[in-house]
Amino acid sequence: MAVPVWSVDPRSGTQREQVAVEATAADIDAVVRAAHATREALADRDARVALLRGAAEQLEAVADELVSTADAESALGAPRLTGELARTTGQLRAFAEEVLDGGYLDVIVDHADDSAAPPRPDLRRYKLPLGVVAVYGASNFPLAFSAPGGDTASALAAGCPVVVKAHPDHPATSELAVAALRRAAAAAGLPEDVVAVVHGFEAGLELIRHPLVSAAGFTGSVRGGRALFDAAAARPVPIPFYGELGSLNPVVVTEGAARERSADIGGGLAASMTMGAGQFCTKPGLVLAPEGDSGDELLDALAKKVGEAAPGVLLDARMREAFLDGVRDRTALPGVQAPVAAGEGEANAVAAGFLTVAAERLVAEGEHDLLLDECFGPVTVVARYANEEQIAAVLARLPGNLTATVHLSEAEGNGDGGHGARLISALTPLAGRVLVNGWPTGVAVTHAQHHGGPYPATTSTSTSVGTTAIERWLRPVVYQNTPEALLPPELREENPLGLPRRVDGRRES
Amino acid sequence: MAVPVWSVDPRSGTQREQVAVEATAADIDAVVRAAHATREALADRDARVALLRGAAEQLEAVADELVSTADAESALGAPRLTGELARTTGQLRAFAEEVLDGGYLDVIVDHADDSAAPPRPDLRRYKLPLGVVAVYGASNFPLAFSAPGGDTASALAAGCPVVVKAHPDHPATSELAVAALRRAAAAAGLPEDVVAVVHGFEAGLELIRHPLVSAAGFTGSVRGGRALFDAAAARPVPIPFYGELGSLNPVVVTEGAARERSADIGGGLAASMTMGAGQFCTKPGLVLAPEGDSGDELLDALAKKVGEAAPGVLLDARMREAFLDGVRDRTALPGVQAPVAAGEGEANAVAAGFLTVAAERLVAEGEHDLLLDECFGPVTVVARYANEEQIAAVLARLPGNLTATVHLSEAEGNGDGGHGARLISALTPLAGRVLVNGWPTGVAVTHAQHHGGPYPATTSTSTSVGTTAIERWLRPVVYQNTPEALLPPELREENPLGLPRRVDGRRES
Repeated sequence: MAVPVWSVDPRSGTQREQVAVEATAADIDAVVRAAHATREALADRDARVALLRGAAEQLEAVADELVSTADAESALGAPRLTGELARTTGQLRAFAEEVLDGGYLDVIVDHADDSAAPPRPDLRRYKLPLGVVAVYGASNFPLAFSAPGGDTASALAAGCPVVVKAHPDHPATSELAVAALRRAAAAAGLPEDVVAVVHGFEAGLELIRHPLVSAAGFTGSVRGGRALFDAAAARPVPIPFYGELGSLNPVVVTEGAARERSADIGGGLAASMTMGAGQFCTKPGLVLAPEGDSGDELLDALAKKVGEAAPGVLLDARMREAFLDGVRDRTALPGVQAPVAAGEGEANAVAAGFLTVAAERLVAEGEHDLLLDECFGPVTVVARYANEEQIAAVLARLPGNLTATVHLSEAEGNGDGGHGARLISALTPLAGRVLVNGWPTGVAVTHAQHHGGPYPATTSTSTSVGTTAIERWLRPVVYQNTPEALLPPELREENPLGLPRRVDGRRES
Repeated sequence: MAVPVWSVDPRSGTQREQVAVEATAADIDAVVRAAHATREALADRDARVALLRGAAEQLEAVADELVSTADAESALGAPRLTGELARTTGQLRAFAEEVLDGGYLDVIVDHADDSAAPPRPDLRRYKLPLGVVAVYGASNFPLAFSAPGGDTASALAAGCPVVVKAHPDHPATSELAVAALRRAAAAAGLPEDVVAVVHGFEAGLELIRHPLVSAAGFTGSVRGGRALFDAAAARPVPIPFYGELGSLNPVVVTEGAARERSADIGGGLAASMTMGAGQFCTKPGLVLAPEGDSGDELLDALAKKVGEAAPGVLLDARMREAFLDGVRDRTALPGVQAPVAAGEGEANAVAAGFLTVAAERLVAEGEHDLLLDECFGPVTVVARYANEEQIAAVLARLPGNLTATVHLSEAEGNGDGGHGARLISALTPLAGRVLVNGWPTGVAVTHAQHHGGPYPATTSTSTSVGTTAIERWLRPVVYQNTPEALLPPELREENPLGLPRRVDGRRES
């Protein structure tokens, strides 16, 4: 019996429309097989470039409908979603450039050396697409992650067909986005089945277990992500599972920074933690701020700005409940204050707030460990420290993170006293991105970007944002003593595609 | 109560000496903590280069004792083990060069762009060592893998301390090798605990579960490797497990190749499959050869050479038994012949042999699937095919492999008729290394080498041989808007270390 998939408006809590039905095991099998059958077509470099560029155009062509649908399903607002779409189209075009650049193929050529002992054969290595990729939609980024986002763009760029498991919070948006991608495929002369979308929780498990699925990308909760990671690892043939699961994103504000810029830092923190109603994976969730006057001033500025923040509607009713429960449980801990109380807002909205606690409560295992767990939504915890030892002690207790931030005084930034260097050294093992004097929300799509970090931030050492995200979907293969006529163009002696490569140890670019 | 670890002579089956005792959980904890404490010292690039070069020297200084001990424990013979040692010392020195080259750091710099929407921060990415690496010794390469081999060399090059779990087949060799590495550490001004060795099956499980172990390298059986892979994935904080588990290494000989070079191919196959008593992970285990006269001639040449091969002693009694059982079970299958019968030799030796079968017996699931399982030791299966369809049908049934080989006629190598290209296309999805007119045994240590392949060949997309093996032990980190004074030298604007890098998309080398 078909299980209906409904689009729900989180502002009102009402069902908007039935979008689809949940995929059965037979549906998943058919979709994966159809995707698998497109691999050869996707191997064509020019077609992939056309697909990626065309996908950006097709998404732009339905921008109004995409943004309004995504807003109706997520309550994230048109300005934010318009920005997300621009990010996504920019990302698709950036990946088209990367495909043309070809550096991601990591071509390495070693010529034969008969004088070596033993003699060395001719070896030519590059990277091949893994096969069908399962992409699990993220609740909090209907456009920048999810169906048309970074996982899909990087997988298609690599030459991997994609089956999107739509997030239940935005099924209509996912359908619209995938339809646009399929139109782009057709326009590029590719089979539409290079990308498809399915719905349903069980369908997501069927997908990760399908023998023809070769890898998966995921952005979401630790619980959901770990369940899929475990399923991927337990397969007869295990596959890579690139999950981004959760992050506290610690921030350290030095005494010197607070003294110089308390209002700036308090205001910046308020803007970052309330952005998107606190539903960013990079939301600063734990801030170490000094005791004393400068720290008090920082908190005053934070309180003012957070108090002024408009209530926001969370992505769905379950998250709203988890947020309210999470705030209540944290606020009830001994010694925890709520200078601005997060909690229920009008209708389905929630109000932003923050909590404070003495850092020494966090230095040893105990009930306050709850404050070291991510609380999804517009709340953060400010832990007041008395000395540098307390900072180190709290940092040593943190799990892996996507980001770690430090705010330094000007002198500390110049290296004076070694305090800044010590803090950077302490933060680096905790995260995949270390920021100075900034805020972790907002993740630029560039070559150098790394959006990942020690578990549970991610389940691998890879990134889901930035052009190196493509590395996740490839595996190397080396050809030994293969006649020129039988080599792929990427590996031929004359380098007809002009690829950057390393030849006998020397780099050519 | 201490469990003794014995060194055993596989030629006589007798105990040589007690080498050590099995490590307890407390021992493992102490060893891992001591290794973990050396990370900061290992971060020094020059010290790592000195360590790697010094390790090669220290191993050479005890070459006679190492080779004679390894021979006494493995029966692999002094010439082979001398070659293994040369491979290992060459590899250590090659990794020293890679550390100096710095390309493995994958430095990417994107300058800030205030004109971008949204403005882009300054981002600088490189790679950091993961932490303590567990290396599981391989039975069949006491020196080229195992304690002083590729996993250890690449992990130390990356800056990761190593705890070796010695293979029970060569505990004395492992102790000697690790002692040499520890002397090299001391000579390089590093703590000796950058590398340590432990013994015991339970100790190996404790090791993979230790919270301060960050990754593991393994070469061995599917059963043992999968158990450790599962344990690594099931940890509260999962870690990467780079296992090389097993491979059939299919070989296709075209009708044209057999017609041109039947004697060469038969002789080459005999040499490859009997090398090291058939105990190479790259041993050709399944050969598709044509029916008819040219295939018959190939088999005659193979029979002659295999029949002349001296009996060999396998690595241990358990492997000998598994080999004899494996040969017996395969030989008993309907339609299987043994032109040269593998089996018991004098004393503890075994005789090399090969089996033949009609390829059509392998095209559908059934009892003959046993022939598609690796049989460790000096035996191979030659499947005689009637047409190209049978080749394709058998290849389609194979699991992942380290290597896949095709022997082509001269005209096919030149691309005539498309037969060669079709076979390469069929073999490429099956393996990490594709060879033309060669034999898979012998794996050159070069930049382009890739020793890995679809599961169960390896549990990841990485390589355990060649300089890119270092990538396994690193994770990226990106610094955002970090003042020059606080950046590591690898990421400073002026590139004081002269590293190859990508800056604003452009490669500098």
